Amino acid sequence: MTGPKMTGPRMTGAKMHELVARLYPLCRSITGDGVRATLDVVGEHLPLTVHEVPTGTEVLDWTVPEEWNIRDAYIKDASGRRVVDFRRSNLHVVGYSVPISATMTLDELRPHLHTLPEQPELVPYRTSYYARTWGFCLSQNTLDAMGEGPYEVVIDSTLTAGHLTYAEHVVPGRSDDEIMISCHVCHPSLANDNLAGIAVAVALARSLDRPRHTYRFLFAPGTIGAITWLSRNRDRVGRIKHGLTLACAGDPGQLTYKRSRRDDAAIDRAALHVLKGRSHRVLPFSPYGYDERQFCSPGFDLPFGSLTRTPYAGYPEYHTSGDDLEFVTPAALADTLEALQQITGVLDGDRTYLNLSPYGEPQLGRRGLYGSLGGRSDTKQAQLAMLWVLNLSDGEHSLLDVAERSDLPFAALREAADALLAAGLVKETA
Amino acid sequence: MTGPKMTGPRMTGAKMHELVARLYPLCRSITGDGVRATLDVVGEHLPLTVHEVPTGTEVLDWTVPEEWNIRDAYIKDASGRRVVDFRRSNLHVVGYSVPISATMTLDELRPHLHTLPEQPELVPYRTSYYARTWGFCLSQNTLDAMGEGPYEVVIDSTLTAGHLTYAEHVVPGRSDDEIMISCHVCHPSLANDNLAGIAVAVALARSLDRPRHTYRFLFAPGTIGAITWLSRNRDRVGRIKHGLTLACAGDPGQLTYKRSRRDDAAIDRAALHVLKGRSHRVLPFSPYGYDERQFCSPGFDLPFGSLTRTPYAGYPEYHTSGDDLEFVTPAALADTLEALQQITGVLDGDRTYLNLSPYGEPQLGRRGLYGSLGGRSDTKQAQLAMLWVLNLSDGEHSLLDVAERSDLPFAALREAADALLAAGLVKETA
Amino acid sequence: MTGPKMTGPRMTGAKMHELVARLYPLCRSITGDGVRATLDVVGEHLPLTVHEVPTGTEVLDWTVPEEWNIRDAYIKDASGRRVVDFRRSNLHVVGYSVPISATMTLDELRPHLHTLPEQPELVPYRTSYYARTWGFCLSQNTLDAMGEGPYEVVIDSTLTAGHLTYAEHVVPGRSDDEIMISCHVCHPSLANDNLAGIAVAVALARSLDRPRHTYRFLFAPGTIGAITWLSRNRDRVGRIKHGLTLACAGDPGQLTYKRSRRDDAAIDRAALHVLKGRSHRVLPFSPYGYDERQFCSPGFDLPFGSLTRTPYAGYPEYHTSGDDLEFVTPAALADTLEALQQITGVLDGDRTYLNLSPYGEPQLGRRGLYGSLGGRSDTKQAQLAMLWVLNLSDGEHSLLDVAERSDLPFAALREAADALLAAGLVKETA
Repeated sequence: MTGPKMTGPRMTGAKMHELVARLYPLCRSITGDGVRATLDVVGEHLPLTVHEVPTGTEVLDWTVPEEWNIRDAYIKDASGRRVVDFRRSNLHVVGYSVPISATMTLDELRPHLHTLPEQPELVPYRTSYYARTWGFCLSQNTLDAMGEGPYEVVIDSTLTAGHLTYAEHVVPGRSDDEIMISCHVCHPSLANDNLAGIAVAVALARSLDRPRHTYRFLFAPGTIGAITWLSRNRDRVGRIKHGLTLACAGDPGQLTYKRSRRDDAAIDRAALHVLKGRSHRVLPFSPYGYDERQFCSPGFDLPFGSLTRTPYAGYPEYHTSGDDLEFVTPAALADTLEALQQITGVLDGDRTYLNLSPYGEPQLGRRGLYGSLGGRSDTKQAQLAMLWVLNLSDGEHSLLDVAERSDLPFAALREAADALLAAGLVKETA
Repeated sequence: MTGPKMTGPRMTGAKMHELVARLYPLCRSITGDGVRATLDVVGEHLPLTVHEVPTGTEVLDWTVPEEWNIRDAYIKDASGRRVVDFRRSNLHVVGYSVPISATMTLDELRPHLHTLPEQPELVPYRTSYYARTWGFCLSQNTLDAMGEGPYEVVIDSTLTAGHLTYAEHVVPGRSDDEIMISCHVCHPSLANDNLAGIAVAVALARSLDRPRHTYRFLFAPGTIGAITWLSRNRDRVGRIKHGLTLACAGDPGQLTYKRSRRDDAAIDRAALHVLKGRSHRVLPFSPYGYDERQFCSPGFDLPFGSLTRTPYAGYPEYHTSGDDLEFVTPAALADTLEALQQITGVLDGDRTYLNLSPYGEPQLGRRGLYGSLGGRSDTKQAQLAMLWVLNLSDGEHSLLDVAERSDLPFAALREAADALLAAGLVKETA
Repeated sequence: MTGPKMTGPRMTGAKMHELVARLYPLCRSITGDGVRATLDVVGEHLPLTVHEVPTGTEVLDWTVPEEWNIRDAYIKDASGRRVVDFRRSNLHVVGYSVPISATMTLDELRPHLHTLPEQPELVPYRTSYYARTWGFCLSQNTLDAMGEGPYEVVIDSTLTAGHLTYAEHVVPGRSDDEIMISCHVCHPSLANDNLAGIAVAVALARSLDRPRHTYRFLFAPGTIGAITWLSRNRDRVGRIKHGLTLACAGDPGQLTYKRSRRDDAAIDRAALHVLKGRSHRVLPFSPYGYDERQFCSPGFDLPFGSLTRTPYAGYPEYHTSGDDLEFVTPAALADTLEALQQITGVLDGDRTYLNLSPYGEPQLGRRGLYGSLGGRSDTKQAQLAMLWVLNLSDGEHSLLDVAERSDLPFAALREAADALLAAGLVKETA
């Protein structure tokens, strides 16, 4: 456990944005001290269990790679000026670059330079985890302004045996059944594609109060982190009843839900029910994107959807220096959190009931559950919700089923079921 | 049995409208002499079995209430003028009002007055079956013209032990399987929402001639009447293979079919097939509306749809004095009857056949069933209907299945099946 | 066997059109020397097994009719001019006309004359296989120009015991499972409705090279030919896993696929997948059209779809002299062939695989199957195809399933599966 135990009031969008801003400068990769520093900051908000897995550990079909750390990197021109400077933005170095210290002309350097010719002011984000090479990322404008050289080229990095680091935060529920929320923590200074998801996950975790499900939050590097977690938890994945990868949670676009491989798992249905009332987009499952790729691999086939605003690779700022602190807004973070809480609220609140008075309608008025003055043509949602719960509570329909068929908000049906329970008209099925 | 046995020619829209007009002035409620008088009039057209169920009888979760009767009611001003007068419209009294005889100011009276401020010329319809109170319904215009009073306020009603009255008309079929048509008979002077359905049901009943199914027509007060019938027929409801509540059958709107709780029962499919060729609307099931609420309660789950023109609570005149004899038209009544006859015709005519020559097409021409001059590009519907019946008569598809898949009218397929039966090419399956 | 054994390069649209043109003048019917001459020409391109079935043979519910042959026919006016002349177009005689030699006035002749008043320049196509009569087809313009007569009327035909002729060409596959392609060969000078389908079938047959399925091509008269074949192959139809009737394959309209009776057989799914990327139309099954009527009769219920361009009876030139050599184009023939080859390619290439590394994604990069420089936002179709094949290869999804769910082209998935097979990451299921 690291960090203090703290659960508190709902984090505002502004507070979530502050967290994003604190995490933004850290140079994360799939291993290394940037990840540890990130988890330290998260640990100030949530108690975390941090796991360190040694280089060389076999995890499913993969092997934990060497740990990468970097202190400095630059391209200096003849006048000693840093034309490209890691200290200004950690995006300038290709992730997992091997160390280099050399003098070379622009022509020699060019195969190691990455730009975005169609977005000439932006610096791209590139990595090379499994092929030993080095490189710099810079704006096309910077490249265009560079002379023939020679240049002093330095990457002061290390690639050595070490560890892969990830962390978990678990909120115990009344049941062992788990809802799992997974965020990747391997992207350097990209605000939406990484940090926004972390911030919303932290905010959800802090808002939970004796939930029905046990909630497991995973903060791990993408792909290799999820694979490592799955490898170390193969026997326990059966507990995960619902899962979500959370990413791109703070951009101004509309909410997007990507279905699980199962296509209509409870998480899919809950998300669609919640999003129906909002501007949103639904994507079919595909084995590409975030770590749902791993959780939904056919051997595991976990019911993992993915919640984002603009989805993976769907905005021009994606994987560029344009994904910065201005691109993420407090309002968007708050909106994602609200939707996420509603979705988990549906999963936590879903139950199946049995109508104990199933022949005809029970007389609700006698029990104080119905307006007594008949003949009025308006119908209150609360009464309609009771009639729907009674009508479909034959032991085969859960409240989410009722919500889908009635087109009533889940919360109204949850309240109706509580009123009917209190009146002894329904009972929960085993 | 009350009334003469009479079956006769198809009732015209004008004749149905006459029946509506005769029933219109009677002051119906869920019990009382208004219901009896209504059934007397219906009994002039159909033999009825009338049932009287004593006050206090337990029926499912409910109890038969006291019987309500009313002789007179008014609000008289100081000059002795009846400002509100039950003799002008029975809508003026809240149904099930307890007796009152008092003098009071307008302010004292006001909590007992019901108006429609947004439809200031119309009188609303209100009831209070299960809460002992009293009240008057009047137009907002009338209320606005009333001075401070004092007023003489009289409701000459009785609420005493008595009976709940309902009636059945059964047309025996060649089979014990039943088609049940249910109409409510508890609304006072409302022409569309009550009387139009009664008139169309009477017309259907009179048009039946040795049907396959046994037809059961139920004329009963809404909710408590259906509940009473269900309570007294729990062991027999299994005979009901198809059911319809019939209401709002005479307004100028398009036909509306509301699906059963089962969603795709034969009644649903038959109705949709018939309505496909007409301007119409289909509504999903909901546990609100007419007595399909009771028939489709989960303990019974009977295949009851609802046939209306503009549906329950769907028109501005609904439950107001605007639902009068002009709102209902002979043409609309005739149109509803025609659709209803076609729907029941599909149910009566549906059968499953087995193609006795299922390998390749049988040579229809040799049997006089096919035009002999080939090569023409136009195809007659009758021949297409025979090919469809032959193709799908594998013992697993009924004619309604064939109608749905072929998009041919049921009647054409029925004729084709008859021709193929006569030719020995198909036989009916058990 | 007739004709030389020859398989060769893909026939071009021009070559197919040449074949159509050679077949065009022959006077085909459901029996007779026109069919034999047609099969002789086809036999120059493909080895054929020709079957002769005697008149009177009972075939399912039918009987092989007498053989019809015709040498000449005309209507001569008083000046000896042939007003209607079989030698100019074989459409001028109603198929299966009995012989006639008589002199008669126009009024006497008129019941035997067939025109298209709304297409006055075109000659209709008519037959009378099973009712003994005779007749001429002519343009309305010709009829309008005819005087009162008398006319010399001659049809020099014979209708005698003989044979029904059909032919098969079989391309043995690595499996006994068959794909069957059926074309009708009974229409006289109609280019699209008959000959285009024959030409495309010939081209497909010539292009096959050690296919997985055994391919059976049937060239038979419509209806009675298919019925005869089915009657003689009842025990073998179980081998037919996929079937297509091929007709109207050369007109300029868009491709049309008509579903099989089963509605979503593999042939239906393969055809829809291929056509999705093209302008096309999909029709539901109906028991009308070409010989899918027989193959899809309920006793056989074979998975036969129908591939055409403009469908059966769907163009003004249908069954008229307008369906001529200009109506069929080389480009349309080539396009139909390409689509047909893709459809059969899907069926031949479809397989089900098992991911041997199903827990998480296998590390493709290590095996040279994945681009090594991460962080780029564009994804190559080939890599996506591998991820999809891996994700759905749980033994329950074939490549066609993957194609439908991923919306990737079948060919890309086929290549991905081959790469994964080579890498030992998947194996074929039994």
